Amino acid sequence: MFSPIIYQSNQLKLIDQRLLPHKSIWVSCDTLEDVAVAIEDMVVRGAPAIGCTAAFGLALDITQVDQDSTWRSYKGRFFDCCARLEATRPTAVNLFYAINQIRQAVESISDNELVRDVSEVVERCAQDLFNSDLETCVAIGAQGCKLHSSDKKLRVLTHCNAGALATAGYGTALGVIRALHSAGKLEKVWVDETRPYLQGARLTSYELLQDNIPHTLIVDSAAASLMAQGLIDWVVVGADRIAANGDTANKIGTYSAAINAYYHNIKFFVAAPWSTIDLTISSGADIPIEMRPQSEITEYAGQSIAATEVTALNPSFDVTPSKLISGIITEDSVIQEPFDKSLASARAHNNRL
Amino acid sequence: MFSPIIYQSNQLKLIDQRLLPHKSIWVSCDTLEDVAVAIEDMVVRGAPAIGCTAAFGLALDITQVDQDSTWRSYKGRFFDCCARLEATRPTAVNLFYAINQIRQAVESISDNELVRDVSEVVERCAQDLFNSDLETCVAIGAQGCKLHSSDKKLRVLTHCNAGALATAGYGTALGVIRALHSAGKLEKVWVDETRPYLQGARLTSYELLQDNIPHTLIVDSAAASLMAQGLIDWVVVGADRIAANGDTANKIGTYSAAINAYYHNIKFFVAAPWSTIDLTISSGADIPIEMRPQSEITEYAGQSIAATEVTALNPSFDVTPSKLISGIITEDSVIQEPFDKSLASARAHNNRL
Repeated sequence: MFSPIIYQSNQLKLIDQRLLPHKSIWVSCDTLEDVAVAIEDMVVRGAPAIGCTAAFGLALDITQVDQDSTWRSYKGRFFDCCARLEATRPTAVNLFYAINQIRQAVESISDNELVRDVSEVVERCAQDLFNSDLETCVAIGAQGCKLHSSDKKLRVLTHCNAGALATAGYGTALGVIRALHSAGKLEKVWVDETRPYLQGARLTSYELLQDNIPHTLIVDSAAASLMAQGLIDWVVVGADRIAANGDTANKIGTYSAAINAYYHNIKFFVAAPWSTIDLTISSGADIPIEMRPQSEITEYAGQSIAATEVTALNPSFDVTPSKLISGIITEDSVIQEPFDKSLASARAHNNRL
Repeated sequence: MFSPIIYQSNQLKLIDQRLLPHKSIWVSCDTLEDVAVAIEDMVVRGAPAIGCTAAFGLALDITQVDQDSTWRSYKGRFFDCCARLEATRPTAVNLFYAINQIRQAVESISDNELVRDVSEVVERCAQDLFNSDLETCVAIGAQGCKLHSSDKKLRVLTHCNAGALATAGYGTALGVIRALHSAGKLEKVWVDETRPYLQGARLTSYELLQDNIPHTLIVDSAAASLMAQGLIDWVVVGADRIAANGDTANKIGTYSAAINAYYHNIKFFVAAPWSTIDLTISSGADIPIEMRPQSEITEYAGQSIAATEVTALNPSFDVTPSKLISGIITEDSVIQEPFDKSLASARAHNNRL
C-alpha cells in the first residue's frame, strides 16, 4: 500500500507533497531539524501523516547518538526534540498524540539504561503508531462503507486531501471513498480543489487517478451549486482535531461545505482515527487555528496573483460545529449526536485514550 | 472616473483585464470580430461592461462602412453583428439588453436612409447606454448607502468584481462600497479571491488599493469562518441576470456566500442596474449558465496545477434563490421580498422595461 513516509534502517524519507502531482521526489530527513522543517514547510501534511512523521523523527534522533551512552545523558535532548516537533504546527492533534505516546513509552525507563535499549523502544513505538494508522484507515473505510446499505451508487464530495498522502496510507476520508469504490457503491467523487494550497487539485485527484476512481475537480465555491442540482449525495472529509463535543477542526473551507450540506439536507461525515479526537478540550473554541503565510494566497508557484501591496488573511483551518455533522467515522464505530455523550461512551467502550 | 472602456472618434479601447493588476495594457478593437473575441476571452468582463462594449462594437462596425450607402445595404450585416455579439457569453443579460436597445433605436429607420445618419443614431445610443450605466452605478451606491443608518462602520464581504472594471465605471457592488466609504460608514472590505478566474484577488483588490479603501483578501471558502467569528456585517455582490422572482445569477460561489450569510443571519445584498433584471424569465431555473474551459481550474498562468489527466467542471455562474437575498439594490430603490411583486410594481412605478 502506498505511503508518503518510509522509515527503514534508521532512515526517514518523505515524498515531497509540494511537488506532486508533477514530480515524485523523495526527501531524506537526516536530522530531527530536517523532520521539523519538513512538517512546517508541508513536505508532509495531513494530521495522521504528521503524527507518524514526528514519531519517526524522534526515532531518527535517538538512533543517531552514541548508543552506549546512558538515557540520563540523552534525556534532555529527547525532550527538546519533542518540544521542537510540537512547535511545528499547532492544529492537528495527532502530532501531540504521537509524541505523547512515545513520551509515555519511555517515562518509566531508568536513567542508567543504555540509549541502545531506549532506541529500540522508541523505534518500536513509532513503527507501531505507523502500522496502527494504516490498519485504522482501513477500518475507518469499512465503517464508512457500512453506512450505505442501498444499491444506489453514491456521488461523494471531499475537501482537501485526507488520503494515503495524509496518513500512513489508504486515508481516512479517501479510505471511506476507496472502500465504497471497492464495494461497488461509488458512482464518482467531486474533488474540491481546496484553496489556497490546492491539496484537492494536486493530491486527491492524483490519488484517485492512481486508483482509477472516477472523479471531477471543481472550485471549492461550486459545491453548493452542485448540491442544489442534486449531484452530491454525501460529503466526507478528514479532521485535524475533534473536541469532546464533536466540533471538528479541518482544512479551511470544511465549515462552508458543512453549512452547504446542511442547507441541502445532504449527509456530512467526518472520517478520523481516535488519535484525532482530543477529549481534553470541550469544544472547537479551544482548538488553536494556524495562520499560514499570505503568500499562499497571493502567489502561485512564485508568480504573483494579486497586486504586491495586497494584504491577505490565511487561516489554514476552520471549525465545524458538531450540529452540522451527520457522523464521525472512526475505526471502532460511527459516532453520532449527542456527540459529547457518544464520544465519552465510545471512549470507555473501546478503551480509548 | 476610471472606466475600462474608452470609445472616442470611432475607436474602441479596452483595458485588458486578464493582465491586471500586473500590467495596464489597453487593447484596440478594430473590428466587430475583435470586440466579440474580447468579450469571449474576458479582456472585458462584468455584466454592465459587457453590455457597453457590445453597444460600442455595433457603433464601431457601422461607422466603418461606406457612410454614403443606404441602411438597406448595411442592415443585414447589422443583424449579423448583433447575432455574433449575442453568441459571445450567454449568462449576463446586459449584453442582450444593450443590443436590444440599439435594435429598437434603428427599427423605424427607413431602408433608404443613409448609413451616415444611422451611424449617428447607433453611436448616440451606445454612448447613452454608457453614460447611463455610469450614472446608474452612482445611484446604486447612494441607494445602498442609505440602507445603513447607524453609526457602526460596516465590514463588507464581496465576491468577484462588480466594480469600475465590470461597468462603465464606479461599479455596482463596489459602487455601494465606495459610497459607504465616502460616507464614513465602512470599516473594511473582505475580498473573496473568486476562483477560478481570481477577479477578487486581481481586480477588486486592485480597485480598492487605487482608492485607498481598507481591505483584506481571503480564499472564498474562508468567508464562512469569518462570519462565525462575527467579522462580517454585510455581503454585497453584483449580478449577471436577475429573474422576475428575484433569483440571481452571479459569479460561481455567490450562492455559497449567500447560504453562509443566511446561516449566520448576515445581510446579503445584490447590487445591480435595471438592465440586469430580466422580467421575461420567471425564475433562476431559466437562466443559461455558461460552462468555461476546465483549464481555468487546472492551470495558472500556463502552469499546470493538477495532473494533466484530471477532468474539471467549470460553471462560471450559479443561481442564488431570492429567499436568500435581503435586498436588490437598483438605481431606483431597494427591492425586497416578495420579490416577484416588488419587482413588478417597481417596474411600473419607475417606468422600466
